[in-house]
Amino acid sequence: MKKLFTLLALATLSLTAAAQQALWGFSEIKSPDVADDGTVTFRLKAPEANNVEITGDFLPRQEVSTPQGKALVRGKATMTKGDDGMWTFTSPALAPELYQYWFIVDGTRTPDPSNAFEIRDTNTLTDVFMVAGGPDSLYAVSNVPHGTVSKVWYPSSLPGGQRRLTVYTPAGYEKSSSRYPVLYLLHGMGGDENAWSELGRATQILDNLIAAGKAEPMIVVMPNGNAAMQAAPGESPLGFTQPTTRLPMTMDGTYEKAFPEIVAFVDSTYRTRTDRHSRAIAGLSMGGYHSLHTSKQYPDLFGYVGLFSAAIFPGEGVTSEIYKDTDAKLAAQFAAKPDLYYIAIGNEDFLYEPNKQWRAKLDAAGYPYVYKESPEGHIWKNWRLYLSDFLPLLFK
Amino acid sequence: MKKLFTLLALATLSLTAAAQQALWGFSEIKSPDVADDGTVTFRLKAPEANNVEITGDFLPRQEVSTPQGKALVRGKATMTKGDDGMWTFTSPALAPELYQYWFIVDGTRTPDPSNAFEIRDTNTLTDVFMVAGGPDSLYAVSNVPHGTVSKVWYPSSLPGGQRRLTVYTPAGYEKSSSRYPVLYLLHGMGGDENAWSELGRATQILDNLIAAGKAEPMIVVMPNGNAAMQAAPGESPLGFTQPTTRLPMTMDGTYEKAFPEIVAFVDSTYRTRTDRHSRAIAGLSMGGYHSLHTSKQYPDLFGYVGLFSAAIFPGEGVTSEIYKDTDAKLAAQFAAKPDLYYIAIGNEDFLYEPNKQWRAKLDAAGYPYVYKESPEGHIWKNWRLYLSDFLPLLFK
Repeated sequence: MKKLFTLLALATLSLTAAAQQALWGFSEIKSPDVADDGTVTFRLKAPEANNVEITGDFLPRQEVSTPQGKALVRGKATMTKGDDGMWTFTSPALAPELYQYWFIVDGTRTPDPSNAFEIRDTNTLTDVFMVAGGPDSLYAVSNVPHGTVSKVWYPSSLPGGQRRLTVYTPAGYEKSSSRYPVLYLLHGMGGDENAWSELGRATQILDNLIAAGKAEPMIVVMPNGNAAMQAAPGESPLGFTQPTTRLPMTMDGTYEKAFPEIVAFVDSTYRTRTDRHSRAIAGLSMGGYHSLHTSKQYPDLFGYVGLFSAAIFPGEGVTSEIYKDTDAKLAAQFAAKPDLYYIAIGNEDFLYEPNKQWRAKLDAAGYPYVYKESPEGHIWKNWRLYLSDFLPLLFK
Repeated sequence: MKKLFTLLALATLSLTAAAQQALWGFSEIKSPDVADDGTVTFRLKAPEANNVEITGDFLPRQEVSTPQGKALVRGKATMTKGDDGMWTFTSPALAPELYQYWFIVDGTRTPDPSNAFEIRDTNTLTDVFMVAGGPDSLYAVSNVPHGTVSKVWYPSSLPGGQRRLTVYTPAGYEKSSSRYPVLYLLHGMGGDENAWSELGRATQILDNLIAAGKAEPMIVVMPNGNAAMQAAPGESPLGFTQPTTRLPMTMDGTYEKAFPEIVAFVDSTYRTRTDRHSRAIAGLSMGGYHSLHTSKQYPDLFGYVGLFSAAIFPGEGVTSEIYKDTDAKLAAQFAAKPDLYYIAIGNEDFLYEPNKQWRAKLDAAGYPYVYKESPEGHIWKNWRLYLSDFLPLLFK
């Protein structure tokens, strides 16, 4: 028997090498390479390439001309080719943050083949890396109690009859008998039910704020806000169909009208508190638009409203009843005294002007709200900051 | 007021374009392009490249020499350059299946920039696509009731003190008061708690088999089997650290010894049935090894055992008590009459011989088991097939 074991042990010794062969090779090149001083070096082996650039949200923004006038877009830098065919670029020291980038090889967008971390925001796949802050950094997975993140399907009146959403239940939920307040947290155009828990780092932000006693333990529901989409790309009957942002029924009232079915599902499935002082709705961009119009349409549902870089007004030709009688609906919403009406936007955001008009409207009517303005524009960095700022204000 | 709305509507009309600008552009090239006849065309715009190849598990395997002798590895094909700088390759008609591939541009591994679907298997990121079968295809998201998939942390005696696992609860679990049987489903070396629900399509296979009445509604727990890893890369305090398969404590007995703490957590958190006839353990490769040794170490825990392309014997120098007294432990396990002891492997698998020896050992002792042999080797295609075959045998 001992001989058999030895023989087989020898056969098994090659498991690691063979398994790696049987699986798929992975790059030995370190890219991105985040140094202790916050500088980051990117590397791409491409001996035959004539020109390799990098574009990312950590590079200085560049001004470009657009049909709507001048705009600031994310910057690009040219990488340097070494004698060994390795192209490199080293950034200045970067502040702690989650960053996105990709390479452009002779004009072709090229994901970094040495980086295993790519996040898809519906139709957009980007390489990501994080420059860590202190041990209390909100975006990092810390050794604190962790909530559970679930992908759940709910019955819906929208096309397909059932839809997928993400639910965060705080640490301790499973073994508790308490009821919890609920935040409905909505993504933007080009996002889906995965957006806030992936690029938005909502799971980590919640775990860390709750563990620090800075936010109330809460359930956070992150639905798919595209009425034409049952679930994120790859997770619906459409299979691995190339995703698109050119969807119908994004901002035409369909989604807001159907929103109470999500609340009904959540209240009947989870141990929720069901008064409006225990219910918040917030979202970014299109999700801010959905939050604004849903909270105004159903003034009894939500005590807390958060508009992050929100779209405000419906497009030309949109005729849904959801967008009618705005003044009367707003009056009813504010007559009920919202616990919080929160607006945040970047001073470079292309939606800055409509937000300014919306604030003017609230001011004129004497409706109270909290307003936060940040640098930069319509980017995930800002939405993570707004969420981190908003959560501690809820359910106090 | 109407004028204000019109003005703002105009400002908002540019939302889609601006949002796309504010986010990140995505390729207009269709790749992969799955035709109705099952042929698939791949496209890469790379005017400056001298040579572009594609490698994938749908190409004929090629024989190579290795230190252990000749081996079959996945094939490669050279793509054809058009006058427009577009490289293309069209496959023969492919059978319905989930496939993996990538490009090699002038020797550099390059993910397909036009494909939004990449799946990481710990340290390996590959492009994926699916050739759909009939409407009953097990791997597709069908319009059947869907289970919930949760990422949950449990307290552990292993390094870090808490670890992440994936839990599938079948459709209806949340609103039922029934108790359910549990399958523990383990990944291989190079995988993590995401592997079975992503490349393994376990969620879809379960939804579809349960909806068809072919498998019992069950809870499926997919833990992280790397004792040195609290959670999948990017989901632990290590952050976006480049993943590796060169981990300590993978097959040294540490994980098997601690396994009962997972069972205790699951039984105290979910509505489970806790007799061994309601508990199964199965895994692929290293996960098969963990299943074999855990089920043998704790003969009262599991009535059902599944070894998919399993590693069998510990490596040289591994001294854990887990691997001692094999004959006596096996005798105890089989004296308790397992409901099912299931072995499946491909006839090209590099672990074929150790599996043959293990079967010889079971045969010699008269221990009953079910054996399935498939074509090909150590690949996800086989593991999905084995899971689809195994699930209907459980908890009958």
